[in-house]
Amino acid sequence: MSSTPVLRVLPLGGLGEIGKNMTVVEYDDHIVVVDVGLRFPTAEMVGIDLVLPDFNYLRDRVDDIEAIVITHGHEDHLGALPWMLRELGADNAPPIYGGPLTMAMARSKLDEHKLGKLVECHDVKPGEVLEVGPFDLELVHLTHSIPDMRAVALTTDLGTVLITGDYKFDQTPVDGKPADVQRLAELGKRGVLLLCGDSTNADRPGFSPSESVAGPHLTEVFSRCDGRIVVTCFASNIHRVQQVVDAAKANGRKVCLIGRSMKKNINIGRSLGHIHVPEGMLVQPREIDDFPDEKIVIVSTGSQGEPLSALRRMAYRDHHQIELHDGDTVVFSATPIPGNERAVNDTVDRLYQIGCSVVTTADAPIHASGHGYQEEIKLMLNLTKPTYVMPFHGDHKRIKLHGELAQAVGVPAENVFRGRNGLPLEIDEQGARFGEPEKSGVIFVDGVDLGEPADAALRDRRMLSADGIFVVVATISEQDGTSVADPEVIFRGVPFKDEADELLDELRDVVDDSLEKAAKDQVREIDLLQQQLHDDLAAFVFRKLRRRPMVLPVVVEV
Amino acid sequence: MSSTPVLRVLPLGGLGEIGKNMTVVEYDDHIVVVDVGLRFPTAEMVGIDLVLPDFNYLRDRVDDIEAIVITHGHEDHLGALPWMLRELGADNAPPIYGGPLTMAMARSKLDEHKLGKLVECHDVKPGEVLEVGPFDLELVHLTHSIPDMRAVALTTDLGTVLITGDYKFDQTPVDGKPADVQRLAELGKRGVLLLCGDSTNADRPGFSPSESVAGPHLTEVFSRCDGRIVVTCFASNIHRVQQVVDAAKANGRKVCLIGRSMKKNINIGRSLGHIHVPEGMLVQPREIDDFPDEKIVIVSTGSQGEPLSALRRMAYRDHHQIELHDGDTVVFSATPIPGNERAVNDTVDRLYQIGCSVVTTADAPIHASGHGYQEEIKLMLNLTKPTYVMPFHGDHKRIKLHGELAQAVGVPAENVFRGRNGLPLEIDEQGARFGEPEKSGVIFVDGVDLGEPADAALRDRRMLSADGIFVVVATISEQDGTSVADPEVIFRGVPFKDEADELLDELRDVVDDSLEKAAKDQVREIDLLQQQLHDDLAAFVFRKLRRRPMVLPVVVEV
Repeated sequence: MSSTPVLRVLPLGGLGEIGKNMTVVEYDDHIVVVDVGLRFPTAEMVGIDLVLPDFNYLRDRVDDIEAIVITHGHEDHLGALPWMLRELGADNAPPIYGGPLTMAMARSKLDEHKLGKLVECHDVKPGEVLEVGPFDLELVHLTHSIPDMRAVALTTDLGTVLITGDYKFDQTPVDGKPADVQRLAELGKRGVLLLCGDSTNADRPGFSPSESVAGPHLTEVFSRCDGRIVVTCFASNIHRVQQVVDAAKANGRKVCLIGRSMKKNINIGRSLGHIHVPEGMLVQPREIDDFPDEKIVIVSTGSQGEPLSALRRMAYRDHHQIELHDGDTVVFSATPIPGNERAVNDTVDRLYQIGCSVVTTADAPIHASGHGYQEEIKLMLNLTKPTYVMPFHGDHKRIKLHGELAQAVGVPAENVFRGRNGLPLEIDEQGARFGEPEKSGVIFVDGVDLGEPADAALRDRRMLSADGIFVVVATISEQDGTSVADPEVIFRGVPFKDEADELLDELRDVVDDSLEKAAKDQVREIDLLQQQLHDDLAAFVFRKLRRRPMVLPVVVEV
Repeated sequence: MSSTPVLRVLPLGGLGEIGKNMTVVEYDDHIVVVDVGLRFPTAEMVGIDLVLPDFNYLRDRVDDIEAIVITHGHEDHLGALPWMLRELGADNAPPIYGGPLTMAMARSKLDEHKLGKLVECHDVKPGEVLEVGPFDLELVHLTHSIPDMRAVALTTDLGTVLITGDYKFDQTPVDGKPADVQRLAELGKRGVLLLCGDSTNADRPGFSPSESVAGPHLTEVFSRCDGRIVVTCFASNIHRVQQVVDAAKANGRKVCLIGRSMKKNINIGRSLGHIHVPEGMLVQPREIDDFPDEKIVIVSTGSQGEPLSALRRMAYRDHHQIELHDGDTVVFSATPIPGNERAVNDTVDRLYQIGCSVVTTADAPIHASGHGYQEEIKLMLNLTKPTYVMPFHGDHKRIKLHGELAQAVGVPAENVFRGRNGLPLEIDEQGARFGEPEKSGVIFVDGVDLGEPADAALRDRRMLSADGIFVVVATISEQDGTSVADPEVIFRGVPFKDEADELLDELRDVVDDSLEKAAKDQVREIDLLQQQLHDDLAAFVFRKLRRRPMVLPVVVEV
């Protein structure tokens, strides 16, 4: 039998991607949570605002949580933190660890949710090793499309678990701080027990281009523009914004930041020294018209065609500060995340309609992915030489491909674990295997409430959005159950035109017949009456319209 | 003053793309309609099945329609024909002209709608010139991703209007019938007055690859597969299916067709000699298991991730005939149409989950676009030497780029017309100019009904799907307007949990207060009462829930 406790690594949450938004690492009844991110809803999730990991597994284990570690400041790794703390009780929250920018963004987010005073966020220095329950916790600097990205190394008696977060090996990063390959190599030499690495680009051969290639191309694109320039990119891609500022400077243009998250992130980035804007270069939106068109670069949110973003509003001529016109050039320094293509295409076409020119990554290499390609994934494996591999951050395709890369560099097939969310990998001195699945999944944020995706509300909304609703109100006598007023029939979202009056008359007849039948059968219980009305009406409506709107009968007794 | 009538070219319909689905050409009060296509709905069009061009303009002009000409058999050029004929009266329909495959597909479609007996569809031979009212009508063979694609030349005293339809200049088409460049050159020599050409790939430099490049690559991909192969492509791409059949033959595999439209199109294609399948090569789905896996190629619909398609069902393990397993390879011989990326990705990932390998156009050049690139657009302009150019089939970006290509080959800027749907280009001996806009747009097919996109039903459904509905029933006395029963409150699609009972109590109080106020103010008219109830309740609900569900008050008098 094993003499040491079992180490469990349990990925939780992450729509269709394993280990993306939240992972629980357990040893000897102590827990460290790595990342607490969220997703944005897909089109089928009607009316849903946000998608969070299911916190249920942690609810009974709150007291066991020693720490929360956030790898980097992107929403899909950090965004659910306030919700989690609120659900699990923020007044007793464990400490939160991460790099300086990550912690500044976490603090800002917690302040927005009025939780800032209750929770401690700690920067962890390079080389620092914290004792967190039975774990030694260390953060290792890597590169990504946001500064201060950190891999998480958790060491117990059994060995080290390394969770990479999102990374690339950028050899020439904009801030001059490449990934700490020395430390990764040392960890590998000492022995990494389990590597959970980023699989996002496991389908791309080669080595990803450096972030710093975008800069010269932005400068070159700017030099060919006569009018105003609008650049859109992710607001958190602070190094990209730095390169936009540099390109603007090289072309003698001022810079104006547009969009709430753009201003917020750049402010945080400036205060931490991640971005340097020369004195006098930034102008306010109201000052733009004081300068000739060829002296202005606007940096805007909206690279994904987001409905409420600044660029989308400009494209729809609906922005309160910026009115685009013929001769302006809009530069998309980002590629659409899968699923956003239509919204981006739509924005681009609106811009053409206005008369703008549009420059995308199809025209010039003005974007670089933040995720390493196949050679980088292999480099990570060769640096850390893990005994076991459980690929993270990918759909089934990428998880499979990452597993094949691991085998290609010599990890035995039986040591590669293609996991799924809710399935814990359990490791002890005998080896590694999957344990029993735990409850996992996602919960929805819908306005201010949290709910299950299987919620009746969502099912109802899908039904309502497909075929609309009929409401039928029958008023019956409390004494004998007979109808005492004409049935009211109201419909919404059911398209029928010419035959409407006739159909409504027939519907009222169906109600009367149904009530008569019920009275004859001595059915007086309201619920039963409503059920019978529902069935009779639904059958009639389907027969007439060949569709199934929601039918809502209301029986009022007077 | 002009001595001849005015020639009008009026593009109608086509979501976001000019002249895509239907164009009306008029001269001396006679009309020829070119193409009658449809679109599939976007995600925002909740519950809509199909999108058709608005036929209103033609409704008053039915007797002026001399002919309908269909360029090719794709849904976006042909699919709305039955709806149009039904709307305008099929018993008095004008003759329909097109290439042999196009007419076979039109007949099949009209038969499905039980209109086949009422309408005449005529193949037009190459070189044949038909007199259609004041027009000389001629069809010119071009190449596209479906056989028998024809440009439409309509000649009057003023000159020739050439509407290209969708085309590429495939120099080595699979059927050995390249575009009739000789005839285009002759028309150009004689003088083309107006060219309305395909802009789909106006943003792609160079010359499109020939359809015939796909075949050898399919053969090569097949040769590397050990298990069964499933190839998915557009069912109408008959030459692609021919190449799949050839690749299967070269690899000693049988072919099985799956999906209704695949079988239908291949049957029509075989009967017209467009596709040749060797004797004994086709097997039925039930026979597949009689052969070893490495002897089978399945050709399936579903290349766009369509929800009900055969491949999608296979990926979801929901197909009644084909059960995919580890070792099967699925080959996507098509690229996603913009907007379909998520559905395609989802299908691909499900296939990986099953254990299939997936080959896409990213892995091998197994697809070729059916639309010509920039050099082909310029070649068309140089062959036909049009006086005026109105680019067709593109969003604002591509229309603009096509216009720039026209200028690049020498068309004066003032002779290039960037049109929009509903805007007629009018040409007489004095020149060309846009006329007054006509009513245009799209209509929706929703189950069996036609409706306007602005229909209240669709607005309602959007609202219902976003926030759900509250129904409130108040019962008042006919005598004095006082409440005679407790208000009933029912909600659907509104997610709130714990505080529901309390909120419902408060809602009932709001109803009572509102009714009391109305009684005091002598408001007795039901509509006014309901309006007041609505406003009071909506304000209360928004204050409580920070959302705006539909609020439907029903006042019953007894």
